[in-house]
Amino acid sequence: MPAPPEFLQFVDNNADKFIKRLGDAVAIPSISGDASRRGDVVKMAEWLNGQLKAVGVETQLVDLGKHVMDDQELNLPPAILGRIGNDPKKKTVLIYGHFDVQPANKSDGWDTDPFTLVIHEDGRLIGRGSSDDKGPILGWLNVLQYHRENKKELPVNLRCCFEGMEENGSEGLDDLVKKESQPGGWFDGVDCVCISDNYWLNNRTPALTYGLRGLSYFKLTISGPGRDLHSGVFGRMVHEPMTDLITLMSKLVDNQGNILIPGVDEMVEPPTINERAIYERLDYSIADVEQSAGGQIAISDSKVDTLMGRMRYPSLSIHGIEGAFSGVGAKTVIPAKVSGKFSIRLVPPQTPELVEPLVEKYLTDEFAKLNSKNKFRIECLHNGRPWLADINHWNFEAAKIATRAVYQQEPDLTREGGSIPVTLTFAESLGVNVLLLPMGRGDDGAHSTNEKLDRSNFIQGTKLLGTYLYELAAITQGKQ
Amino acid sequence: MPAPPEFLQFVDNNADKFIKRLGDAVAIPSISGDASRRGDVVKMAEWLNGQLKAVGVETQLVDLGKHVMDDQELNLPPAILGRIGNDPKKKTVLIYGHFDVQPANKSDGWDTDPFTLVIHEDGRLIGRGSSDDKGPILGWLNVLQYHRENKKELPVNLRCCFEGMEENGSEGLDDLVKKESQPGGWFDGVDCVCISDNYWLNNRTPALTYGLRGLSYFKLTISGPGRDLHSGVFGRMVHEPMTDLITLMSKLVDNQGNILIPGVDEMVEPPTINERAIYERLDYSIADVEQSAGGQIAISDSKVDTLMGRMRYPSLSIHGIEGAFSGVGAKTVIPAKVSGKFSIRLVPPQTPELVEPLVEKYLTDEFAKLNSKNKFRIECLHNGRPWLADINHWNFEAAKIATRAVYQQEPDLTREGGSIPVTLTFAESLGVNVLLLPMGRGDDGAHSTNEKLDRSNFIQGTKLLGTYLYELAAITQGKQ
Ligand SMILES: [Zn+2]
Ligand SMILES: [Zn+2]
Ligand SMILES: [Zn+2]
Ligand SMILES: [Zn+2]
Repeated sequence: MPAPPEFLQFVDNNADKFIKRLGDAVAIPSISGDASRRGDVVKMAEWLNGQLKAVGVETQLVDLGKHVMDDQELNLPPAILGRIGNDPKKKTVLIYGHFDVQPANKSDGWDTDPFTLVIHEDGRLIGRGSSDDKGPILGWLNVLQYHRENKKELPVNLRCCFEGMEENGSEGLDDLVKKESQPGGWFDGVDCVCISDNYWLNNRTPALTYGLRGLSYFKLTISGPGRDLHSGVFGRMVHEPMTDLITLMSKLVDNQGNILIPGVDEMVEPPTINERAIYERLDYSIADVEQSAGGQIAISDSKVDTLMGRMRYPSLSIHGIEGAFSGVGAKTVIPAKVSGKFSIRLVPPQTPELVEPLVEKYLTDEFAKLNSKNKFRIECLHNGRPWLADINHWNFEAAKIATRAVYQQEPDLTREGGSIPVTLTFAESLGVNVLLLPMGRGDDGAHSTNEKLDRSNFIQGTKLLGTYLYELAAITQGKQ
Repeated sequence: MPAPPEFLQFVDNNADKFIKRLGDAVAIPSISGDASRRGDVVKMAEWLNGQLKAVGVETQLVDLGKHVMDDQELNLPPAILGRIGNDPKKKTVLIYGHFDVQPANKSDGWDTDPFTLVIHEDGRLIGRGSSDDKGPILGWLNVLQYHRENKKELPVNLRCCFEGMEENGSEGLDDLVKKESQPGGWFDGVDCVCISDNYWLNNRTPALTYGLRGLSYFKLTISGPGRDLHSGVFGRMVHEPMTDLITLMSKLVDNQGNILIPGVDEMVEPPTINERAIYERLDYSIADVEQSAGGQIAISDSKVDTLMGRMRYPSLSIHGIEGAFSGVGAKTVIPAKVSGKFSIRLVPPQTPELVEPLVEKYLTDEFAKLNSKNKFRIECLHNGRPWLADINHWNFEAAKIATRAVYQQEPDLTREGGSIPVTLTFAESLGVNVLLLPMGRGDDGAHSTNEKLDRSNFIQGTKLLGTYLYELAAITQGKQ
């Protein structure tokens, strides 16, 4: 059951209207991290709620309570729950998106006003939120509009969850998802989830994403003196916290990316030949990573090893030091208390619960070897589990078939090196397969200046979302 | 030729007047590092110039030109040159002091207004500049006042050099000293120098200081990516500058204070038995260093090794990192360009010229071993030579005899771990022995809140300065 040709035609015919609507959405500066823009996030929720109702979605704005930001107590923007259909013979798919955006100012280096969607002649639709994540949400709206205007029934039951705090920690969402996943809740009966909030691996090949790395973020603190000391007066008399800290941090990772904490790398099995083949197939090159990093600094000459470094291996990065001299120029201080910050990106079967004790024991032991009179403390500032989906699940199969149909390309099957915490929330609360189905390209610049979504990604992406729903329905696995 | 008993009596009789005059000096907030206080530094110069003339010193205010501070072009405060006497049969001694002070605000944590001299019942004279360095300058004034009021001739020819920019780099002074050291200059014919601008080793024992450490301050920069990267996206794909920087910095010094750069520690001869005896004699304990550091973090349990660590060995301190994440909280950044700052305190025979190539070669070699694709750069931000005087010179002998006479104590012979750049300027421009003759105690808090000079240090210190001049004259070495 491919998507009806009329649907694809409708999308092409209405492309300009869809882009105009994307412009309306971008024009609302719904920056969740800026207290002064909180009203715009609420306005965006109301705008989207109106759009959803207009295309036949039954909705509810959910009050998520209050939170404190920048020392102010603020009302959280409402989440939007929605549903169409309750046919027990159809699969029920839950879609997620976020209508808040990252901050943006012309003065950050934007070529145009970030909150005016600019249609560039090269096809780029430039504006804050165009790709992250208003474009994908509006893709769903476009799909629903076809069905509403043409009085076509959706091939699946649809559930929606749209939030306005994703760029600021998704505050309040976890509790909502857990509650609505209970029997009788909005998400009761959901068979699979589709999240369109990430990006292709490159600028050429559509992608399906089936993995995310987790994170354990550490703060390693060494202290000793009662106050900062002068290196002239105290140098070579006392144990300097920086010396101990640098020594310990030098034992965390080597410059080939190998994690030196015993047991951490070892937790991850080497890839099988079949698994390597997944990475072999990906449309990627060393030039891609070096171009996006802005330097010829790839650790490996191998495309497969490079991709596996991001996607299927843990990584350890040292971010910086709090409490040391960090200014320009020369200051001859012996800092009294310094905290090194580093984090480990986790992959299955690693979990924070398994990895953190290894890190704490290792550093405690290494510090003991120093015989230092300074004080040592290791804490985990925050963490999150990794996530991995079954790429052979019918949810992914439907997306693969839809991608081939719309793009005439085999999709890249990717894992992200970062995390999208809401993915885990849905996967764990609902216990169903979650598909990440990106609309935008690798160079969209989601959190950067001149964020864009290519016109073809918006229009073909809309076709992909619709076709995916039809292919979901067509597959004889799952509820049928 | 000890000081006349009338002089000692005069000092005791006039103690309250001397303290009142110190209060007048402290009341002028001559902060050289604060552009808005520049007028007060000039006012202080004029006040001191008036005081000097009143006690019979022939003076000259020297315009040192302009400089730029906080993006403003400012007039430098004038230096004061002075002289009394030109008797070829007498020794000529040059005294130095500075009439500018460190910044101070009540809100920094002062118990009292920093620019109102408070006479505490425990004997502390509390106020900014009381000890650093208005007290010592006024000590000289007190000595000269005795001779003026009692129509006594000084036992030596006196030359003065007082500046108002010491706390801000002594701008302009080097050139002045070099110029005036030429034949026909103000300092022509000077036989020895006495600088009273440091502190006793403890709070109990007068000290003479004969050494200062030098400094080479380094900036080690590792760069690679074109911009800061996200550790989720790039972790384990690229060479991270922080990994290389931390690895290199861990190879600089161990936590016993040993410098790991080949050839640096080795340049310094082990102490002879006689030299160790100097440190054995010093009135100091591990408790002293731990009290002043505010933590039980002394590297050694030996008083001698601890003191030699500060005074006669080089030290290497790591101060911090520029360009890395240094804030509170958790940020998952891979910084694109990071600069580690460290410095080495130098002792003879080390010089910046000898040490810097060793550091540069060692780090260049160590970086090459890493096989990193990142970029490496090592620079020296600034440096200064160490200084060591002959403690058996008649200039020191005179000070020892004077100390015994005034304090009935053998002075601690100390070397400072830090630097007082003007010392080197005088030593090298004039080629004569320089004595550092501190007035204040180790806990005066020169650059800190609640700076104080003890009343007994001011009064006995005045007697010491005067007695030193008489003992200089009495010694049959030097010009006689
Ligand atoms: Zn997003
Ligand atoms: Zn985002
Ligand atoms: Zn000073
Ligand atoms: Zn000072």
